[in-house]
Amino acid sequence: MASTSSSYKKVLTLDSINQNIRNVEYAVRGEISNRANDYSNQLHQKNKLPFDSVVSANIGNPQQQPHLAQKPLTFWRQVAALTEYPDLIENQEAIKLFPKDARERAKHILQDVGSVGAYSHSKGAQSIREHIAQYIEERDGFPSDPEMIYLTAGASAGVQLLMSVLISNANVGIMIPIPQYPLYSAALSFYNAQPVKYFLNSDDDWSIDVKQMAKEVDDARAKGIDVRALVVINPGNPTGSCLSKDNIRQIIQLAYEKNLLVMADEVYQANIYKPNDLPFVSFKKVLCEFGKSSKAEEQSIAKEVELVSFHSISKGVSGECGRRGGYFELTNISPDVEGQIYKMASVNLCPSIQGQIGMDLLVRPPKKGEESFELYEKEVNDIHQTLLERSRKMADKFNQLEGIHCGEAQGALYLFPQINLPQKALKKAKEENRQPDEYYCLRLLDATGICVVPGGGFGKKAKEDGTIFLRTTILAKETDAFVDRFGTFHQQFLKEFGTP
Amino acid sequence: MASTSSSYKKVLTLDSINQNIRNVEYAVRGEISNRANDYSNQLHQKNKLPFDSVVSANIGNPQQQPHLAQKPLTFWRQVAALTEYPDLIENQEAIKLFPKDARERAKHILQDVGSVGAYSHSKGAQSIREHIAQYIEERDGFPSDPEMIYLTAGASAGVQLLMSVLISNANVGIMIPIPQYPLYSAALSFYNAQPVKYFLNSDDDWSIDVKQMAKEVDDARAKGIDVRALVVINPGNPTGSCLSKDNIRQIIQLAYEKNLLVMADEVYQANIYKPNDLPFVSFKKVLCEFGKSSKAEEQSIAKEVELVSFHSISKGVSGECGRRGGYFELTNISPDVEGQIYKMASVNLCPSIQGQIGMDLLVRPPKKGEESFELYEKEVNDIHQTLLERSRKMADKFNQLEGIHCGEAQGALYLFPQINLPQKALKKAKEENRQPDEYYCLRLLDATGICVVPGGGFGKKAKEDGTIFLRTTILAKETDAFVDRFGTFHQQFLKEFGTP
Repeated sequence: MASTSSSYKKVLTLDSINQNIRNVEYAVRGEISNRANDYSNQLHQKNKLPFDSVVSANIGNPQQQPHLAQKPLTFWRQVAALTEYPDLIENQEAIKLFPKDARERAKHILQDVGSVGAYSHSKGAQSIREHIAQYIEERDGFPSDPEMIYLTAGASAGVQLLMSVLISNANVGIMIPIPQYPLYSAALSFYNAQPVKYFLNSDDDWSIDVKQMAKEVDDARAKGIDVRALVVINPGNPTGSCLSKDNIRQIIQLAYEKNLLVMADEVYQANIYKPNDLPFVSFKKVLCEFGKSSKAEEQSIAKEVELVSFHSISKGVSGECGRRGGYFELTNISPDVEGQIYKMASVNLCPSIQGQIGMDLLVRPPKKGEESFELYEKEVNDIHQTLLERSRKMADKFNQLEGIHCGEAQGALYLFPQINLPQKALKKAKEENRQPDEYYCLRLLDATGICVVPGGGFGKKAKEDGTIFLRTTILAKETDAFVDRFGTFHQQFLKEFGTP
Repeated sequence: MASTSSSYKKVLTLDSINQNIRNVEYAVRGEISNRANDYSNQLHQKNKLPFDSVVSANIGNPQQQPHLAQKPLTFWRQVAALTEYPDLIENQEAIKLFPKDARERAKHILQDVGSVGAYSHSKGAQSIREHIAQYIEERDGFPSDPEMIYLTAGASAGVQLLMSVLISNANVGIMIPIPQYPLYSAALSFYNAQPVKYFLNSDDDWSIDVKQMAKEVDDARAKGIDVRALVVINPGNPTGSCLSKDNIRQIIQLAYEKNLLVMADEVYQANIYKPNDLPFVSFKKVLCEFGKSSKAEEQSIAKEVELVSFHSISKGVSGECGRRGGYFELTNISPDVEGQIYKMASVNLCPSIQGQIGMDLLVRPPKKGEESFELYEKEVNDIHQTLLERSRKMADKFNQLEGIHCGEAQGALYLFPQINLPQKALKKAKEENRQPDEYYCLRLLDATGICVVPGGGFGKKAKEDGTIFLRTTILAKETDAFVDRFGTFHQQFLKEFGTP
């Protein structure tokens, strides 16, 4: 081939690449998190810092070592180990090491999936989808069809798939709560759609004001935006709030009236701290309950409103996020479109089999009378109890500190305290070209090793008057160290900048 | 809220959804595969069919049960089981069940990842990326940087991520081979770019004619297409061919001259059937070798041509596709753009930890002198031997049949025979509104239970003269049954339609 004098220029530059990607923001793992990693490495190399450990309270990563360390559920790991190495199931030595129900479960799972190293059906293994459908039926009291259940690599993968289906052009609008989990805004940037924001009521436990929401739809439509869907996160991330059944009913009614598909992110459904006052109620259940009414309109709602519900093994009491397992359930989606979703699932081959097995374990815990039941119950109760205690201890501490207000956790794995910053601190932040909440969180990290996420990362920006928000997980093992370090830091901060 | 008289209309319809998704085609799991699933279910329910088993030779799914059944590597599964249930590592009973090196490996992995249920770094666990870099260095004799290695959920997820970065608008062109693995055309449809096809030479072991390729780039650019990148699959899928080092050198030279990024899909690098004549050579190695030249241009090539290389645990001798593990390595990518890729990896959190552990096992097999070495070697050699024998037996059979020509497998897990169909069969296919290759493959499935993929699914359409292609995996356990049933079917087919 003839040599040419052409000189090669980079194909991929910031200006040539997909500009939607440049627009994506994802604060949960951004600058602050990178700096925390850096501190962690420095401590590992025995460098001296003002703290002796980094507390990663920025990510809901329950099993992260060494400072969060929620121990995995024994039954889960026994079944996982046996499915990985099936020779153990009947091995006489191994029988002493594994309870009978774990061995039986592993055998049963392998009868369907064959090998954890083989691709499954693109929707996920048939038997696991059937078990999920049974779980949903028992939870809600309404039928669930295994063919409408898709296993996914965590809820995130499912959300992104659905977004890619919904967003046909740059004029499509999707309603997202503010504050929101930034996966949603990231997906909207990536697929280039319009975020249509609705605002959770910070003065009323982050409830949803449906009238206000209706107005947001109308306003966006008046601007020509093709508003198609409505994302709800319940229990809330980052807010840790739980929606009441009435509120859910109103939201579905609104979706009907405004012709919106509902995406219900319910990954924290097992993290409920006030089960009597605010139990978890699924959107699917409330949607189906409309069908029991004698009113024609309510029956239409149940039969027509499109709903996609997401769940995951990453949170709850399993906290198995490294496994990447989850599912979504389609309700009232047209069969044609379901076929297209199936095709896209096929291109992605299948989610990891251990992630699928995790879903099976989540929906079929050991039953009373089975060998593993007692230990399982104890482990689950301990985790619930620990999370509840940590969340209370942290919320109490926040509320004791000047200028901080923090609601009690109702659900999920987070607290979202509101902090009033002194004017001098706002000025200083501005000088350093930082948002006030970012400035506060970076100072916190530098002083204490505690890594949290500024409210701005969830769309909840600092207010003019100096009110900021931050999200902390309630997973930190050393809650005492967390609250001590945080308290000392905050007092010092106020000493430096004056009281708000 | 006031009730309105509005009636809800489906938000998601075939016309409203993202039309790119409608345009996606993915034949590997299409109609034929669905019909095969259906037959399989019928047999399960003891329905009578003309065959007693379905042979799924459509997907490279080595561990699929019950008819392909490549046994997993023992060492892999032992390490996986121990990382799932770490209590076993030091347990006195369990010590009898696991070799020392498996226990040590599990301990070592857990020192870095902590728990297989925790999120890792978004690029993948640090130690595993370091091991991969060492593996690449040993394979190629050139440096590799762990920071440029991204673990992924199989190679497919990596390819899709890179495509999403490359494709900034509908005018971007990406060169893909014909025939190709349909992931590529599916990704181009999904991200809405122009496939710029180059044709593998079926008369010369599917080699790449670089002059022809250069012409395709020029032609596409003359039409205004912004041709940015070049996909090469080596060893080839569906062709089973291996590129010579010279051919790779020419391709890289072309990429330099035409200013193209190279995406090298090298997931079959361990499936090599003629290691002396046609060993695997990586694009990375050949690219780096340009840098050893004294010519300035060749040094520029090594320093400038952007390359993304993909690998996976799904194929090779591990065949652990259900685990969803893989990686890509970035070479000569600008740091700015790498930062954007990192951000997108962060949005996806991390690939499954067991998939990452699979990559660690792939790049660090047991060494001579270690307890597991002997068994591992035996298992690996047996798999290589079995695949080689099956491929030969199948290719021989194809070549014995009238009107069929099939090259010997050089690499990968497939044969891609060429079949001359009689004119009457073409006519019949047309009557049934089927492509000739699709018609043949459906008839094959209906008569024998053998499920293969028509060449059209890889972009290799039937020719006017009746020449068709199909892809079969060489994984079927019952190779004898496969060749017998296939031979009988083909002869009957020719009896029905006349000889070609």
